[in-house]
Amino acid sequence: MIRQIGVLTGGGDCPGLNAVIRAVVKTTLTQYGWRVSGIEDGFEGLVFNHTRPLKLEDVRGLLPRGGTILGTTNRGNPFSMRVPRGDHFETRDVSDQVVANFRALELDALIVIGGDGSLKIAHELIAKGLPIVGVPKTIDNDLMGTDITFGFDTALATATDAIDKLHTTAESHHRIMIVEVMGRNAGWIALEAGIAGSADAILIPEIPFRYEPLEAMIALRDRTGRKFSIIVVAEGALPVGGAEVYQAPARAGQLARLGGIGAEVALELERRTDREARTLVLGHLQRGGSPSAFDRLLATRFGAAAVHLIANRDFGKMVALHGWRVASFPIADAISKLKRVPPDGELVRTARDMGIVFGDETIERG
Amino acid sequence: MIRQIGVLTGGGDCPGLNAVIRAVVKTTLTQYGWRVSGIEDGFEGLVFNHTRPLKLEDVRGLLPRGGTILGTTNRGNPFSMRVPRGDHFETRDVSDQVVANFRALELDALIVIGGDGSLKIAHELIAKGLPIVGVPKTIDNDLMGTDITFGFDTALATATDAIDKLHTTAESHHRIMIVEVMGRNAGWIALEAGIAGSADAILIPEIPFRYEPLEAMIALRDRTGRKFSIIVVAEGALPVGGAEVYQAPARAGQLARLGGIGAEVALELERRTDREARTLVLGHLQRGGSPSAFDRLLATRFGAAAVHLIANRDFGKMVALHGWRVASFPIADAISKLKRVPPDGELVRTARDMGIVFGDETIERG
Amino acid sequence: MIRQIGVLTGGGDCPGLNAVIRAVVKTTLTQYGWRVSGIEDGFEGLVFNHTRPLKLEDVRGLLPRGGTILGTTNRGNPFSMRVPRGDHFETRDVSDQVVANFRALELDALIVIGGDGSLKIAHELIAKGLPIVGVPKTIDNDLMGTDITFGFDTALATATDAIDKLHTTAESHHRIMIVEVMGRNAGWIALEAGIAGSADAILIPEIPFRYEPLEAMIALRDRTGRKFSIIVVAEGALPVGGAEVYQAPARAGQLARLGGIGAEVALELERRTDREARTLVLGHLQRGGSPSAFDRLLATRFGAAAVHLIANRDFGKMVALHGWRVASFPIADAISKLKRVPPDGELVRTARDMGIVFGDETIERG
Amino acid sequence: MIRQIGVLTGGGDCPGLNAVIRAVVKTTLTQYGWRVSGIEDGFEGLVFNHTRPLKLEDVRGLLPRGGTILGTTNRGNPFSMRVPRGDHFETRDVSDQVVANFRALELDALIVIGGDGSLKIAHELIAKGLPIVGVPKTIDNDLMGTDITFGFDTALATATDAIDKLHTTAESHHRIMIVEVMGRNAGWIALEAGIAGSADAILIPEIPFRYEPLEAMIALRDRTGRKFSIIVVAEGALPVGGAEVYQAPARAGQLARLGGIGAEVALELERRTDREARTLVLGHLQRGGSPSAFDRLLATRFGAAAVHLIANRDFGKMVALHGWRVASFPIADAISKLKRVPPDGELVRTARDMGIVFGDETIERG
Repeated sequence: MIRQIGVLTGGGDCPGLNAVIRAVVKTTLTQYGWRVSGIEDGFEGLVFNHTRPLKLEDVRGLLPRGGTILGTTNRGNPFSMRVPRGDHFETRDVSDQVVANFRALELDALIVIGGDGSLKIAHELIAKGLPIVGVPKTIDNDLMGTDITFGFDTALATATDAIDKLHTTAESHHRIMIVEVMGRNAGWIALEAGIAGSADAILIPEIPFRYEPLEAMIALRDRTGRKFSIIVVAEGALPVGGAEVYQAPARAGQLARLGGIGAEVALELERRTDREARTLVLGHLQRGGSPSAFDRLLATRFGAAAVHLIANRDFGKMVALHGWRVASFPIADAISKLKRVPPDGELVRTARDMGIVFGDETIERG
Repeated sequence: MIRQIGVLTGGGDCPGLNAVIRAVVKTTLTQYGWRVSGIEDGFEGLVFNHTRPLKLEDVRGLLPRGGTILGTTNRGNPFSMRVPRGDHFETRDVSDQVVANFRALELDALIVIGGDGSLKIAHELIAKGLPIVGVPKTIDNDLMGTDITFGFDTALATATDAIDKLHTTAESHHRIMIVEVMGRNAGWIALEAGIAGSADAILIPEIPFRYEPLEAMIALRDRTGRKFSIIVVAEGALPVGGAEVYQAPARAGQLARLGGIGAEVALELERRTDREARTLVLGHLQRGGSPSAFDRLLATRFGAAAVHLIANRDFGKMVALHGWRVASFPIADAISKLKRVPPDGELVRTARDMGIVFGDETIERG
Repeated sequence: MIRQIGVLTGGGDCPGLNAVIRAVVKTTLTQYGWRVSGIEDGFEGLVFNHTRPLKLEDVRGLLPRGGTILGTTNRGNPFSMRVPRGDHFETRDVSDQVVANFRALELDALIVIGGDGSLKIAHELIAKGLPIVGVPKTIDNDLMGTDITFGFDTALATATDAIDKLHTTAESHHRIMIVEVMGRNAGWIALEAGIAGSADAILIPEIPFRYEPLEAMIALRDRTGRKFSIIVVAEGALPVGGAEVYQAPARAGQLARLGGIGAEVALELERRTDREARTLVLGHLQRGGSPSAFDRLLATRFGAAAVHLIANRDFGKMVALHGWRVASFPIADAISKLKRVPPDGELVRTARDMGIVFGDETIERG
Repeated sequence: MIRQIGVLTGGGDCPGLNAVIRAVVKTTLTQYGWRVSGIEDGFEGLVFNHTRPLKLEDVRGLLPRGGTILGTTNRGNPFSMRVPRGDHFETRDVSDQVVANFRALELDALIVIGGDGSLKIAHELIAKGLPIVGVPKTIDNDLMGTDITFGFDTALATATDAIDKLHTTAESHHRIMIVEVMGRNAGWIALEAGIAGSADAILIPEIPFRYEPLEAMIALRDRTGRKFSIIVVAEGALPVGGAEVYQAPARAGQLARLGGIGAEVALELERRTDREARTLVLGHLQRGGSPSAFDRLLATRFGAAAVHLIANRDFGKMVALHGWRVASFPIADAISKLKRVPPDGELVRTARDMGIVFGDETIERG
């Protein structure tokens, strides 16, 4: 029988986390009458027993607010945690402590709102017997098992708005403007914001690029009177052969010193063309802000659905969006591999139909 | 063999129309080398031979712009069109003229971007032998055969933003604020914006409402210190029994004089409670503005896909979004009935989980 | 010696009220060490002794939030207040009660954040001996003594954004779109949003209009291929002779039934031209939302300056913006008359330079 | 007698340039009947005779668009221009050519829309006899002679929006977030966006900072439960003694390698506290986007006023905003020195009233 559930947020900040928390609290309290315990700073809160009860008044006005009132951290893996021991720190497996605390806190179920990393931890805790349901969170949209999750739409809007803003300045100054967006392993934001923002080139991790097609595109645009270009680069994009080259420590250091792949592309294109190039790294801007209507709705549906999963004792699952329907999906399968952009899929093809260059094609300079 | 295609936009304005036109032109010209003829003001352009060639430079910068450069009208049904005859006007079937003009203009296929009404006309013209593909357009999201279409996301964002703005003024003045949004036959915008904007009640055509639950909700909120309420009303919402009552001419006139159902709800709630109520009719604001990133992307995909349908000679179909995949769907089936909000579906249930009232429930005043 | 001050917000809601409250609390507590008492729902709170202490934690996160945490009302005039007496209500002068409560609450000064109405009340209470400083609040920008006040910039942005959104729909449908904005006595919002939003005509209370120039403008635009028009109307705009006509009860009732002057203009222009006309009444949308950066800054400066005025015992003044400098101005002078748009001023002239019509000119239909 | 005027835009891109151009064209053509010649890419267009006539249809729809349709460049000083000579480039004074071209193009007056740099060039060309009026453009707001100019309000809104977005992510992750904004010589954007965005510290060129007060502020916030901080840094801000230190080539190189002062502050604060720090460099985002309503209005007024100055043959002046009135100001005086933030002024004092730290104070860690 369930009397109290816990809820935590793990991994990077994401618009909609608070909306999920609010939906969890509202659904639990008004539909089931259980109590909700908010666990602070991801799994760390279960290690150090940092929790607080969440009531209806704690979640009022929370829907439009970005961030998470519970706090989050990227460092809270209880299977390998840096904890104080005497006068120094050591890295230890404190997962048994987490299990013991879970019992001591009188929790009957746990909702883990998190991405790949947090869900892997959840998976291991499930193996230790904890009754957990997941709510997928990935601003990069690279998690398997759900067609999309909250936060991505807001990040996409922020990235597209930035590209819009750079258009006029690129055009006025006849410049190459490069926007580096999130996406270490998957280029979803770059691809979708690039199409929505009418970029001239999109560079993503899934399609290694060469500089020649970029040069040719710039030359071709020049010849037809458009003396500027917009290039959207996912932070994980790499030139052909780059995966090997960039692993070399000296080269990796050079890339980091430059400030990322966006800066490298700018440098190289200035070298190869007579245009000025400027880079904007959007960074944390993409994680912030009030969630879009779409994300508020999806986060609310996910939060409510997670509570219903618990009521059905359907543990080990995460809520998911399949098509436009809320469904569930085994956490074990969701963490098995990343969801990446299919290089030959309809989205990339549509981008090519619009004349967008990916750096893998052959282009005549016109 | 295809050498030239036509494209027209019909029915009400919708964010993303220009993005579709742009994608059609880019895909046609760069991928297939056919010509594109832009037909002005919906089917009227085919009646009066108002067309112009569309080239790449005509669609530059068009992606972020709302509206349609081709113009549109709600009055252009060639099967029943008001046309001049001598010194007066008469209503006639000019569809044969449309077919003749289509041939005379040397069009080999036609893309109709439109909603229920325009697709019905397209369906009849297909029966007369015209090779047509459709692109579904409905800001209300009530068209069968596609999970969603462009424009809805932007309208949803506009409605949610308005609700956000009214929250603080409602709270500061302890008022009931009523927002009337689009949705004559289906309550999608009201439902989704209501959840996303944290409304206290949502009234939609699919769920006839009574005033007692609204009163009770207001009283209950009062008792817990929240002396304001936000109610989102679809323009087609009706009280229980309203369908009959409002058909009576006198009553319909009264409703129109009041300024719609939102104004009536305000009047009635002021009468039943001691709170002031104010109404905002969002109206055309929902059709305007730059399309959201989501809508720009979807409109672009639809435009490109429509051209590919033509290349495959897959006429009689419209492009569609099934889940997150672009697919196609027979126009004949799309126009057979409207897609309405399932009153017992997951979305309505989620809204109820959030404590949102639909006016069909029994509520104790606490 | 000052130990505690009170602060209240009166009149209509306005973006930036919370920012003023926050600045008052922060400045008072950290710079002077006095206490702050928040008075609820305008002067009503002084009649019924509804107050609460305001501490730093009460104003955290308040800067970007619209509305007022203190509540406000348009009905709280203590010199003429509807108060319960036995089993009925009566209208009475309870200002002595306000003075007595002020003493009993141990307040040493009072900050009144309000417009014309609230400052008039403040003025009368000053005459009764209360040490009051004012913070001017008028979303219409019609208050004398300050070049501008907070809230106007946000309302202007909302109105301009609405006009932007209607542009594409007006153009797509070849319609006349009419936007009715706030401004009962002064046309500042209509004038500035009209220029910023590229309206074709602006109708304001300061310039009575005729329909002929509007007709001529529409005809002229038609002839040059622009088959749509945008007209911005202040709610207080009137046709030539309208002031008399509209005072007649039957006519006033007719105007109210139509839904305001915007609806009347639409009706009349549909009658006089062959174009469809649609009206949007922006209404409360203009009072809501997060204050713009400009308004947050100005509200913060005003809040801090009001506290410094108290420290200088400079009572009977309101803070004001003269040019770009924060100054002070006698409340007695501020309430003596309204600040209206000079019909021959540079702003109106600039609008005319842009080709915008005010309805008082003679235009040839081209 | 005036028959034709020229207009050019110089220096960095800025929201509102197109609005000025539109107002110049509309006012000139409809009020005076002169012709307008658009000069491309700043003064370069006068060197190479790159001009085109501007008609009413060229400026339609231009008001809300960022950037400049005339193009601009930072490299076009005719008194020291890199021009081709035979097979190489050389830097030469081509100002006589500019004067000759001005005559040959049959221009009777010239409007220079530009900042400090462009107005200095204009000043020298005036000395050579050209009849020039200026329109001040400075996104940093550091130009003497005008209280404010267009573009600043939009940049301020963009910077404030970014700070808003970073708030939730800073709070969720308990991080120090540093936002680097424009302002090489003057801290206006940092100061105003910092106040409007509720920053905890603001670092500007006018107030050299030490790290100790920042550390103390962070420690004090920690002790009161706010485990995050937002710091806004103008790109030209320097630590105490930094002006000397950073001039040393090695150090300047180090700063550039780090990616600017924002990155250095992050590095240093991570070293001095146990918090993570992240930097966002807003960069070109601040120059882009649709101008705010305020900027559209101001740009329109400036454009119209510049034409009226020409009609009055009031050359050698630039238009200016004095208080809220459009006035004029000698270009010679405007370029004599920069307008910087007064360290003891009311704005800085207000920021301090709000508890914002500038790095020059003594703070106890609580």
